[in-house]
Amino acid sequence: MLTPQHLQVNGRNYPWMKKPVVVVCVDGCEQEYINQAIQAGVTPFLKKMAAQGSVLTGDCVVPSFTNPNNLSIVTGVPPAVHGICGNYFLDREANQEVMMNDAKYLRAGTIFAAFSEAGAKVAVITAKDKLRSLLGHKMRGICFSAEKADQATLEDNGVDNLLELVGMPLPSVYSAELSEFVFAAGVKLLASQRPDIMYLSTTDYIQHKFAPGTPGANAFYAMMDHYLTQLDALGAVIGLTADHGMNAKTDSAGKPNVIYLQDVLDARVGVGKTRVILPITDPYVVHHGALGSYATVYLSEGVALPDVARKISALSGVEVVLTRAEAAARFELPEDRIGDLVVVSERLTVIGTSTTRHDLSELHLPLRSHGGISEQRVPLMFNRKLAPIPSDHRLRNFDVFYLAMQAAA
Amino acid sequence: MLTPQHLQVNGRNYPWMKKPVVVVCVDGCEQEYINQAIQAGVTPFLKKMAAQGSVLTGDCVVPSFTNPNNLSIVTGVPPAVHGICGNYFLDREANQEVMMNDAKYLRAGTIFAAFSEAGAKVAVITAKDKLRSLLGHKMRGICFSAEKADQATLEDNGVDNLLELVGMPLPSVYSAELSEFVFAAGVKLLASQRPDIMYLSTTDYIQHKFAPGTPGANAFYAMMDHYLTQLDALGAVIGLTADHGMNAKTDSAGKPNVIYLQDVLDARVGVGKTRVILPITDPYVVHHGALGSYATVYLSEGVALPDVARKISALSGVEVVLTRAEAAARFELPEDRIGDLVVVSERLTVIGTSTTRHDLSELHLPLRSHGGISEQRVPLMFNRKLAPIPSDHRLRNFDVFYLAMQAAA
Repeated sequence: MLTPQHLQVNGRNYPWMKKPVVVVCVDGCEQEYINQAIQAGVTPFLKKMAAQGSVLTGDCVVPSFTNPNNLSIVTGVPPAVHGICGNYFLDREANQEVMMNDAKYLRAGTIFAAFSEAGAKVAVITAKDKLRSLLGHKMRGICFSAEKADQATLEDNGVDNLLELVGMPLPSVYSAELSEFVFAAGVKLLASQRPDIMYLSTTDYIQHKFAPGTPGANAFYAMMDHYLTQLDALGAVIGLTADHGMNAKTDSAGKPNVIYLQDVLDARVGVGKTRVILPITDPYVVHHGALGSYATVYLSEGVALPDVARKISALSGVEVVLTRAEAAARFELPEDRIGDLVVVSERLTVIGTSTTRHDLSELHLPLRSHGGISEQRVPLMFNRKLAPIPSDHRLRNFDVFYLAMQAAA
Repeated sequence: MLTPQHLQVNGRNYPWMKKPVVVVCVDGCEQEYINQAIQAGVTPFLKKMAAQGSVLTGDCVVPSFTNPNNLSIVTGVPPAVHGICGNYFLDREANQEVMMNDAKYLRAGTIFAAFSEAGAKVAVITAKDKLRSLLGHKMRGICFSAEKADQATLEDNGVDNLLELVGMPLPSVYSAELSEFVFAAGVKLLASQRPDIMYLSTTDYIQHKFAPGTPGANAFYAMMDHYLTQLDALGAVIGLTADHGMNAKTDSAGKPNVIYLQDVLDARVGVGKTRVILPITDPYVVHHGALGSYATVYLSEGVALPDVARKISALSGVEVVLTRAEAAARFELPEDRIGDLVVVSERLTVIGTSTTRHDLSELHLPLRSHGGISEQRVPLMFNRKLAPIPSDHRLRNFDVFYLAMQAAA
């Protein structure tokens, strides 16, 4: 099959790669994790990337959550185009919170679908299963999650016998091993099947637990470094980025700084007048108690928006309150899937709904989370020198495939 | 001598203490240092403060530098009142940068001066000598720096033979021991002379070097915990705060993110049209290369302020640009000692003047610094339960003496 020299996906022109491209999305990878791991001397490959490759910083999508950013990375466009702006939005007619992890909510095709359609061999490996159906939408090739690696079949996932291939037992969904399985499978597949494009997307279980430079974090990055070394040795062009950063959300004794926004609005605006949606909410909340630094608020008819916005802005720990139109413009979000107001809290503060709806009993370590503008800066690292980037280009994490493919062309 | 029940200092009414009050200003103490040290299990006393005392968060003064904040802490008022808003300001008539570490620049009396005048025994111990003359202005009692502890005399410092008393050799000005000397001397003086008021102010040498939770940081906080335990055992009411927080200012490979603002303005506005002043500059720059997240800009006559402000605002990494009046209002600064514009950079970015004027060769570890709004949240911890604080009161680090004295009254 003749392959084209370039391929247009969502208005961007991707060069066809001559070497395998591996893009790694390290979930919750605040840049400081890498910096401190290098300092601790446990990640020689990441250190080498700075000297021999390219180290840049990019902005992720706000809300700085996993799904909107993974979808931006694999489509190359912001949520205004691909439609996924969180895990939940409010279906106003049904007055019901709707999960957005079904491919029917996706408004743009992925780089994987386009390239596999054009003949490229593609492999996509995610840690959690929640992302698999979105990432694998309409693509041919290999696509599975570490979480359900034992259930992968040739028919559904393009690969089977994964536990045997990888040589690891099925990891727990709450573990560092879930991410390690992603890397280990990536190395085995690159060696055995040599896909043209591979995407490895981890989970931030470790980053929610451990601060940069602490033993638990350094061990994770040392593990990652080990597998990156192998991917590099196999000749891959590697691009590494993150879906979002990660920050402590506590005071000096480790108590979380939480604005229970629904409680505040019920008391100050009236019960039933507003509905606070936390798009971080997902079925896996143990490690962050569904608390992030971003919320969207729907107002009942007749409620004065400027008044509510003012009341929220006055709360200590709130960074910015935007109207739907302002938020859609500033963060490139789909207007029909965000509320009347978007609220972003400061670096050390998270937003909850009501005290009774957050179970913090499973939070055995001081809360670390994300969602805000404070988690927008993420690493963009490559094991190749890149061509100079125009100084007026605002680098985004969703430039990673474009840049890696250019380096592999 | 009969002591009053209350004492007015700079418009605030301080209760006279019945127990010794020890206020500790931990230089550069981002809250996460304490949180991580507690997690690591190396600071049992700080952990106990959360359970048996009070843990709060306060805002420091912006610019989040050492001198403005130390002066606010010991006067109880913002720089608009006490006048010290950095280490340097520009004397416009002489067109010369003037150091502000002389007491003649101080516009308000200190709590120490007022209380010692009224009969209280006061002891002030700082790490670096640069603060000593400002903190000790017009006070009676003990006042010395660890840096020059060997030169302290009964006549000038209210105490002598310090190395013998403390049992430590004179520490290097760039060391953790400089701060340890402050604590060790504090314990010895509390035991031997039982001052009514003691102020211990450390240096952020360690915090500039080491991230929260890493071995170098944890060792420092363990040392501190050891001495706090002794101060507590001696019956002191302890209030702990910080002059400012501390953040990494680098990318994922540890390279500093620097805006060389004078170079930018020379190129885009014209040489000699603007003058960038970095009020972090001081004689001790080895650990931060005089790079912080705050600058002030003076414009030559005829230069269009809105145009310059717009050009600076457009730079990546700039958080906010304010006019003199806006900055003076928002940060409570003395208008006559700041420039025409105040520039604050984002959490991960610092501001320099010209590349040629910053020697980064002594920066052997990735840059960590402060100065911005991102370093404004600091701990306020007490070894006593405090009376409830009105919910509309914005807590400041310079409330620490007031709160500690209330707890000791």
